[in-house]
Amino acid sequence: MKQLLIASSSSIHGSGYLEYLQPALEVFFKGVKNILFLPYARPQGISFDAYTEIAQQGFDFMGIKVTGIHSFDDPILAIEKAEAVFVGGGNTFVLVATLYQKGLMTPLKEAIEAGLLFLGTSAGSNICGPTMQTTNDMPIVDPASLKTLGSIPFNINAHYLDPDPTATHRGESRGTRIQEFHVFNELAVLGLREGSWLQVTGNSIVLKGKHRAVLLQKGKDRIECSSETDFSFLR
Amino acid sequence: MKQLLIASSSSIHGSGYLEYLQPALEVFFKGVKNILFLPYARPQGISFDAYTEIAQQGFDFMGIKVTGIHSFDDPILAIEKAEAVFVGGGNTFVLVATLYQKGLMTPLKEAIEAGLLFLGTSAGSNICGPTMQTTNDMPIVDPASLKTLGSIPFNINAHYLDPDPTATHRGESRGTRIQEFHVFNELAVLGLREGSWLQVTGNSIVLKGKHRAVLLQKGKDRIECSSETDFSFLR
Repeated sequence: MKQLLIASSSSIHGSGYLEYLQPALEVFFKGVKNILFLPYARPQGISFDAYTEIAQQGFDFMGIKVTGIHSFDDPILAIEKAEAVFVGGGNTFVLVATLYQKGLMTPLKEAIEAGLLFLGTSAGSNICGPTMQTTNDMPIVDPASLKTLGSIPFNINAHYLDPDPTATHRGESRGTRIQEFHVFNELAVLGLREGSWLQVTGNSIVLKGKHRAVLLQKGKDRIECSSETDFSFLR
Repeated sequence: MKQLLIASSSSIHGSGYLEYLQPALEVFFKGVKNILFLPYARPQGISFDAYTEIAQQGFDFMGIKVTGIHSFDDPILAIEKAEAVFVGGGNTFVLVATLYQKGLMTPLKEAIEAGLLFLGTSAGSNICGPTMQTTNDMPIVDPASLKTLGSIPFNINAHYLDPDPTATHRGESRGTRIQEFHVFNELAVLGLREGSWLQVTGNSIVLKGKHRAVLLQKGKDRIECSSETDFSFLR
């Protein structure tokens, strides 16, 4: 049975790394001793070691040992043997390019299907949908493909931001960008505000956290969805 | 001799389409009767016809006729025969994907080298550097390549935005995104604030408009560059 936590962000304003997620992590990772960490998204270009250390700090409160996948000779085997996986945020293009370069996209997808506990934040959540095409990130590298895990049947827009009605800047709003996505694509997109996450348990995909999420579908009005909404109807 | 106007945006707050650029356009397009318009970036997914109509309105003040490239049977021939080209803004991925699909990237690059007058705004400016990898846009389609015209020797970041010191949002700032670009790439990046443009005349690449631009180079401190700076030293 699939079990994923898909979080908009690793932290929220005024709170430490993973801190707002602690109550959910305690339940989700109950009994887990070891988490395999994928540091490939490299926020601010930090090293795999430095990023793994940050992830470890996020799990110290539960006494879970976090190990970076880069410390294994065979990363595919590491995924196959893992109790649980955490894919951290950063640049989604860098993350996806690295997953393809190392041949990990399919093994990770299959392990998740088989019940591997999966936590994603930000870029690590963007890869849970069928494509990474609703990322906010800059294409600083060029991945082999924009297709991703497809562990949920719709795309994620992490760090979803409402338009600022007082803005004088002429760059596109998040909503406009996703509207443009729907000119060329059919997939539904869920805009997850910071502090929100999805809890996937088998076929159920439930919104958690105190915020609403924005469901954007081709040719339909946007829908503000309350916490506890189950998005399994989108499959 | 190369002649380009590379503008951060097609409009600025409180002003109409191309309005802030009118004095520069009057000089740059003096004597021009016809402009070939490339509507491929399709802002908000609008049609080629609708976008060409907007572009036409932007040149009515000079009495120049704007024709969309989609109205020609042979777009390569249309570029080869054009007096001047305007590539409008929208989604850079859509623009670049279309230029490759139609086999236009190389003919356009060569025509510019041979002296074709070129105006780009926003996405149309992002394609003037060696790659589109410092776009702010969403990868709603997957172009054949992220390589672009290379008519100037550095990348553009259009609609450059300074970080908001009061922001509570945890998404990356523009500066952080470009810092991450430099972990993987050597190219210099020029952040053009809205209301700024570059005037390229042969080898000279001069910043115009009242704002400063931000020069971001790998391993160096950011530099705020005044209007009238010539960036030809970057080649």
